[in-house]
Order: sequence, then C-alpha cells, then structure tokens
Amino acid sequence: MKNVFVIGVGLIGGSFALDIKSVYPDTIIYGIDVNKSHLEEALDLGVIDKKASLDQLAEAGLVILAVPVDKAIDLLPIVLDNISDDTVVFDVGSTKQNICKAVNKHPKRRNYLSAHPIAGTEFSGPKAAVKGLFKGKTNIICEVENTAFKLQERVLSFFQSIGMRIRYMSSEAHDQHIAYVSHLSHISSFMLGKTVMDKEKNERDIFDMAGSGFESTVRLAKSSPEMWTPIFRLNKLNVIETLDEYINNLKQFKNYLENDDYDSLFNEMKKTNHIKDILNGLT
Amino acid sequence: MKNVFVIGVGLIGGSFALDIKSVYPDTIIYGIDVNKSHLEEALDLGVIDKKASLDQLAEAGLVILAVPVDKAIDLLPIVLDNISDDTVVFDVGSTKQNICKAVNKHPKRRNYLSAHPIAGTEFSGPKAAVKGLFKGKTNIICEVENTAFKLQERVLSFFQSIGMRIRYMSSEAHDQHIAYVSHLSHISSFMLGKTVMDKEKNERDIFDMAGSGFESTVRLAKSSPEMWTPIFRLNKLNVIETLDEYINNLKQFKNYLENDDYDSLFNEMKKTNHIKDILNGLT
Repeated sequence: MKNVFVIGVGLIGGSFALDIKSVYPDTIIYGIDVNKSHLEEALDLGVIDKKASLDQLAEAGLVILAVPVDKAIDLLPIVLDNISDDTVVFDVGSTKQNICKAVNKHPKRRNYLSAHPIAGTEFSGPKAAVKGLFKGKTNIICEVENTAFKLQERVLSFFQSIGMRIRYMSSEAHDQHIAYVSHLSHISSFMLGKTVMDKEKNERDIFDMAGSGFESTVRLAKSSPEMWTPIFRLNKLNVIETLDEYINNLKQFKNYLENDDYDSLFNEMKKTNHIKDILNGLT
Repeated sequence: MKNVFVIGVGLIGGSFALDIKSVYPDTIIYGIDVNKSHLEEALDLGVIDKKASLDQLAEAGLVILAVPVDKAIDLLPIVLDNISDDTVVFDVGSTKQNICKAVNKHPKRRNYLSAHPIAGTEFSGPKAAVKGLFKGKTNIICEVENTAFKLQERVLSFFQSIGMRIRYMSSEAHDQHIAYVSHLSHISSFMLGKTVMDKEKNERDIFDMAGSGFESTVRLAKSSPEMWTPIFRLNKLNVIETLDEYINNLKQFKNYLENDDYDSLFNEMKKTNHIKDILNGLT
C-alpha cells in the first residue's frame, strides 16, 4: 500500500492507522489534523509517521477522512481536488446522504468510497486509538457502484484484511436505519444521564446506587458532543422520527403503569426480550 | 454460620449460596423454590446442598429471601412466623418501602434486615448464579435500627467478608433514588429495544448495524419481565416521576433539534459528560 494519509487522527483515524501498520508495515502514514496538539500526540504515540498538509495528497495511495461529519462535507471536495487519479478516499462518518450529495457531481467522485465502520468506543483523540478495533465489525458501504472498481478492490481488501465484514446499502437507507440503531441510543443515554444528574443533587447517591445496568445504559453519555452534534444535525429528520417513536413508547409504558395494566407491561417487556436473539444473530 | 436457607434459588439467591460456600464451607445450604425444576437444577449444579420447605425455617441461622418483590411481601411474614429467635432473615428486593411496611408490626421484625445488593446480570435462574457476583458492590441497608444489633452484626460481617460495601438509607429514600438510578434505566432499555424492533422489520439490519454502543443501551432489555413487573408496580409513583422527567428531557432535546438550536444540544451533552467522573467516583 502506497502512502496513506489520515485526515483526523482521533479514535477512528488513529485506529485505522494502527491497523494499516500491522497489515502493511512498510507503508508511511501521514497525519493531517487542525488540532495541532493531537497531531503531535499522534506522532509521539507512533500512530502516524509524519505530519502533512492537504496539498500533499497527490502522493497518496489511500486517504482516510475521519473528521466530524460536517467537516467531512466541507473537506471531501477539497480532498478530491487534490488527489491523483489513482488515489482512493474513504470516509467513516455516521451520516452518509449529505456527504454523498456534496460530491456526487465531482469529477473525481469515482475515487471516493462512502463507508461507515460500525466500531468505536466512548473515548476520543489519538490516545484512544487501538489496534484491532475493527476486527469482526461491520463496515457499511454506500453507493458502491459510484466508486471505480479497481479502487473499490483496494479498499475492500484492506477492510477484509483487518477482519471487517462488508454490507452494502444506499445512503438513504443507511441514514434511516442508523438513526434507529445508533443515533437514538446516544440520545437515550445522554438524556438518561441528564435526568439522573438533574435529580440526584448529591452525586454520592448516584455512585453508591449505580449498578452495571445503569452504567451500561449511560455509557454513551460520555460521547463527544463535538462529534455528535453534527451527526444529529445532518440526520435531523430521521432522528426526529426515532425520537417521536421512542417518546410515544415511553408514554405508553407510563400509561400502562398509571392504569395498573400490568399484563400489558409484562407483555411489552416479554416481546422485547427477543432482542437478545437478534443481537446473537440467532434469527 | 449455622444452616442457611435460600428462598428463591435464582441469580441472586444462587450467587449468595455460592459465596456462602466459599466463606463458610461447612455450612449446609437448603433451597426452597416454587419452581421445582429450578430447585433440581440448583441441586445438580451444587448451588444448594438440600431441598427444604418453609416449615423447617426454625433450624436456620440465616434465611435469604430472594424472590420477586411481590412474592417477598407475601412470604416475609410467613418466614418470620416460622424462624427461631436467633435466625436472621434478609431480602434482596429492588423496592423496600412496601416490604418494610408489610412487617413493621410483626413480633419478629427485629429478625429481619432489609437489604438491596446492587449487583446482578441480565440472566436468570440457578444456572445464572456466579461466585463473586457481589465483590466490590454496594449493599443498601434500610431501617437498620429496626434489626436486632447482634443479628445485624452476623449478616453485615457476612456481606463484608464477600467484599460488599455497606450504605445505610431509609426505605423511602432508597425507593426514590433507585427509581432514577436503576428502574428508569430498565424502562429506557426496554423501550429502546421495542422502538428498534417495531421499526426494523428486517432483523438483519439491526444485527448488521448494531455496534457495541447500541448493545450496551439495550442490554437491560433482556431482563426478566417476571422480576421487573412487580418492581415497577411496587415503586409506581417514583417510577412515574422518573418517566415524566425523562420524557420531558427527550422532548426538549427534540425541540432543540427541530428548531436547529445546536448550541443548546451541544451544551446539554457537554454537561452530561460529567457522569463519567461521577461513576469513576471522582467527585
């Protein structure tokens, strides 16, 4: 693999960089980031080999665009302007329609692969980068037919070499599904955290009474607002739809409880137990 | 420790039984359970030594009442009727006011310690029992002054020998706090699972797009409706209060999004990041 440029040396960009080093140890990894201290840190940690800037992108075999989704929309056209014919670029953003729309008429559209690796932790920055983050994880590839076949192959074989399974989808379908299966979870976590913190003025009480159940439901409330605000903005209509459904379900649950309808409460919970089988892939 | 009787040989009762065996290897552990196949299973697995019935309770040094909270309210008076003066009984239920009220005039009230060990997994039944489940976990003890001092000592030293930290609280305060820090999480998980399952008719999409974030927020949706319906019923008013707050917070979030108020969205999430420090005990 020729030179790799990682734009955004955080959790995701950094983790891909580490995996590239494992699979292609001779590849030089260049880092680009507006956050200068993150860039230094990434260099110190050995996550990247050299610092670079956007005007060097013609030297790249692969460019990984791993910045918040609103920055990605601004940057991708500029990246495509700067690469050579043989460079492939992929992004990692959690919303796909807007970014695809931003470049669908770009002369180098076929050099871009629209990806969403379903992997991460609640941590951020270059020190959050881990090797093997993507192993066994799914990568959602959108509008694959709009990427040049030879360039597809290069990127997809890299994904497969680090243990990812590939799933193809339209960007529209991606944004609809991911609103339910990811974006809503983050909001539910944030609002659960807020609800508990607003009520429990004495934080000792939270600490003492919090079991692993509570911890797992608020885990995502540690996520980065810098990353998530643009995601919600760019997937606004789908996210609002999920919130409407979720709020209605909670109100319905509350109604059952107010009306002492414990059979209905029981049945709703019983039906939802089935999620265990789905997540275990036992459908 | 003289004979121990475990009423309800599920996850919690079974796990305490395993810990008793570790700390007091010569103690005989008797199991009582209306579910005969659970009782057999607990015997086969070595979680209990013998099967027993309620009329044998006078032989007990310690009785552990680990059944759903509504059953506990019915059973505790009968248990207290049957024990000797030197027996101590503790329960493990997730709601405390009702059970304390049910026995506060009982002649043997002082033989009862009202406890809520903050520990568990989403699994159920004797095969879910694990050794060391309670290590490092908090046990909330309510109305401790209503338990005879000598009997308190016996139970509390057992809890400490298996690594639990003790926190004292009134049963009223317990039920208020636990509604926020535990009961609401379970409802949020169940309703998140329901929302996703109702929308995602093709379960493959859930499986493909579910990351560890989604999995952690719906983990509690695998919980037992048999256990949780009575908990919500017996803590109804507090739970409804938490649902009101949570629903309002979600609606507010939705409003910010509808009105493109991204500064407010950002700030709410930023404030909630603080939960990380609270859970790490860094307040």
